[in-house]
Amino acid sequence: MSDQHRYLIIAEGAFGPETSKTANSAIRYLPGRVVGVLDSQVPGRTSREVLGFGGDIPVVRSIEEGFALNPTAVLIGIAPAGGQLPAEWRGWILAAIDRGLHVWSGLHTVLGNDPELAARAREKGVAITDARRPPPHLAVSNGLAAQVDAFVVLSVGSDCNVGKLTAQLELIRGLEQRGLRTRFAATGQTGMLIAGWGLAVDAVVADFIGGATEQLVLQAAQDADVVLVEGQGSLIHPGYSGVTLGLMHGACPRAMILCHQPSREFIGDHSITRPAWVRIPPLPELVRIYEDAARPVFPSKVIGIALNTYDLSAAAAKAALAVAQHETGLPAADPVRFDPAPLVDAVVRARALVAKPPA
Amino acid sequence: MSDQHRYLIIAEGAFGPETSKTANSAIRYLPGRVVGVLDSQVPGRTSREVLGFGGDIPVVRSIEEGFALNPTAVLIGIAPAGGQLPAEWRGWILAAIDRGLHVWSGLHTVLGNDPELAARAREKGVAITDARRPPPHLAVSNGLAAQVDAFVVLSVGSDCNVGKLTAQLELIRGLEQRGLRTRFAATGQTGMLIAGWGLAVDAVVADFIGGATEQLVLQAAQDADVVLVEGQGSLIHPGYSGVTLGLMHGACPRAMILCHQPSREFIGDHSITRPAWVRIPPLPELVRIYEDAARPVFPSKVIGIALNTYDLSAAAAKAALAVAQHETGLPAADPVRFDPAPLVDAVVRARALVAKPPA
Repeated sequence: MSDQHRYLIIAEGAFGPETSKTANSAIRYLPGRVVGVLDSQVPGRTSREVLGFGGDIPVVRSIEEGFALNPTAVLIGIAPAGGQLPAEWRGWILAAIDRGLHVWSGLHTVLGNDPELAARAREKGVAITDARRPPPHLAVSNGLAAQVDAFVVLSVGSDCNVGKLTAQLELIRGLEQRGLRTRFAATGQTGMLIAGWGLAVDAVVADFIGGATEQLVLQAAQDADVVLVEGQGSLIHPGYSGVTLGLMHGACPRAMILCHQPSREFIGDHSITRPAWVRIPPLPELVRIYEDAARPVFPSKVIGIALNTYDLSAAAAKAALAVAQHETGLPAADPVRFDPAPLVDAVVRARALVAKPPA
Repeated sequence: MSDQHRYLIIAEGAFGPETSKTANSAIRYLPGRVVGVLDSQVPGRTSREVLGFGGDIPVVRSIEEGFALNPTAVLIGIAPAGGQLPAEWRGWILAAIDRGLHVWSGLHTVLGNDPELAARAREKGVAITDARRPPPHLAVSNGLAAQVDAFVVLSVGSDCNVGKLTAQLELIRGLEQRGLRTRFAATGQTGMLIAGWGLAVDAVVADFIGGATEQLVLQAAQDADVVLVEGQGSLIHPGYSGVTLGLMHGACPRAMILCHQPSREFIGDHSITRPAWVRIPPLPELVRIYEDAARPVFPSKVIGIALNTYDLSAAAAKAALAVAQHETGLPAADPVRFDPAPLVDAVVRARALVAKPPA
């Protein structure tokens, strides 16, 4: 799928700062390439009004209103409740295909395998891109990622959706400015949309989480000084912890950046029947949990804290950063809201400790 | 597939104490139902000669020799090198189908999806059972397993293939004799073959490891006092740690039994390019690793140690058990070789601490 599509994003019933991650990242990191967002619950507003960024990108009430904005593709960014494609969404996608729009999907349900959608797309000559279609020929990981020359950094988190993707994306420019060839390795559908490549490790068969990550790191490490691997889930998240640990052991990072949203007290990224179930421990304990989990396979240190403070006042955000830095003894930054330099410096310093001298 | 099949097991090139787990467990736990084992590398020997148990079950040189033993099904127990079905194996399976034999497979490759095999099976009216075909409609786990009344026990391990399955199977009778309705929850293909039900959690899409396990535990917990969940992999295994942690957090066990093979020093269950890579830490540290990993989601204690001492002398085995007991302060047993009672007692005691008094 062309990198230059103009996307109409379907985020029905969910467009918001914490509920439409793929949409929000596309708006932030693909500037000028999102023409509108379909969410009939907040029509008439702009991205800036809903998210705090994204300027005048309009929220539309209907798919037809969206078509009037001249998209070249529709982007299915959020999973419909229940996981199955609702009849209404199917109608939207078929209407988009009929207008010659391409389809990009981050759903577990592979839209390209849907007979009706696939037939219609063939007929109209448009592409359906499923970011989560697992690649063929995956293997069990065998430690090859531990052997690359590039310095591998993994973002890890207290929970889902706290900023593991953005923490890495915000470091790329600073690292490049320091003269380090930096490659971002996307492990989820949103990162893949932005980077244009990657592998959705949460969509592979469970035995191959580590192997898929290893394959990705080996590819990213070619001709790179630093590989920034997008983390997934959390070691303390009851639903996704397996993906997190498999990814850690497959990537063999030398360093980790711990991401957290200070306003979050409990794991809360998916509908749990017992709200307020898993309490997020203090940052120093999270540091210990991640370093302990890495150690038996490939020792790794947390080298910095990335806080997502978007829902705090500037003063409260600065205070949270100071507390995090004091508690952990590590540099802390909100790399989206403030200067990412403390984390860039942390990567540069950590790499210098292990980098080979130039030949 | 009927529970009463007589199996010819294909274990080509791999029949041995540590290399043919499904075959070995079928021989041990499905007595009288294995007619022979195909492995042209050790023909003419018996199961007892190769494994140390299984009596006179013959090892045959060719599929035709196996057919002469009057099986009603072939069982593909080991994965072929490389994961793809070799042409020779395909020929064996087709020959079996042509003779009206059913096919049971524990491979990741779903044989029932193979056009040639599926068409031939349809034509001959035989079933192809793929234990690792993931069930439809899995969900992300949401903590429901933490709420069951049954006492959930998970076996965990230092490595793959150290006895997590057999440790649980050996406890069933003892627990039943104590008056506890005991249900075994199989999480892998071998356990499923023996139990006749279960769910291969390593074959589901990674995001659903926990959810698949939760579904299994909820089903097992109906009308049970104790649920024995088969563990998978190891938290320190670079290839499979994700499955292990996802399974732990999905099952929410109240107690864990730690399984280990004392003669094993390094993680060694799959071909790693760097042999002797991950060293297995001492048992007390493994206890801590497992309890730490469980704690944030659902606290759980290791209540006993199951050692697999098959490759030690009786004296060395007894010494290893004494050391394990001394180091960890926990009861230790080799439940296959010696009396499983210490572990049965540990489960009974741990359950008594949390069980509700009768109404």
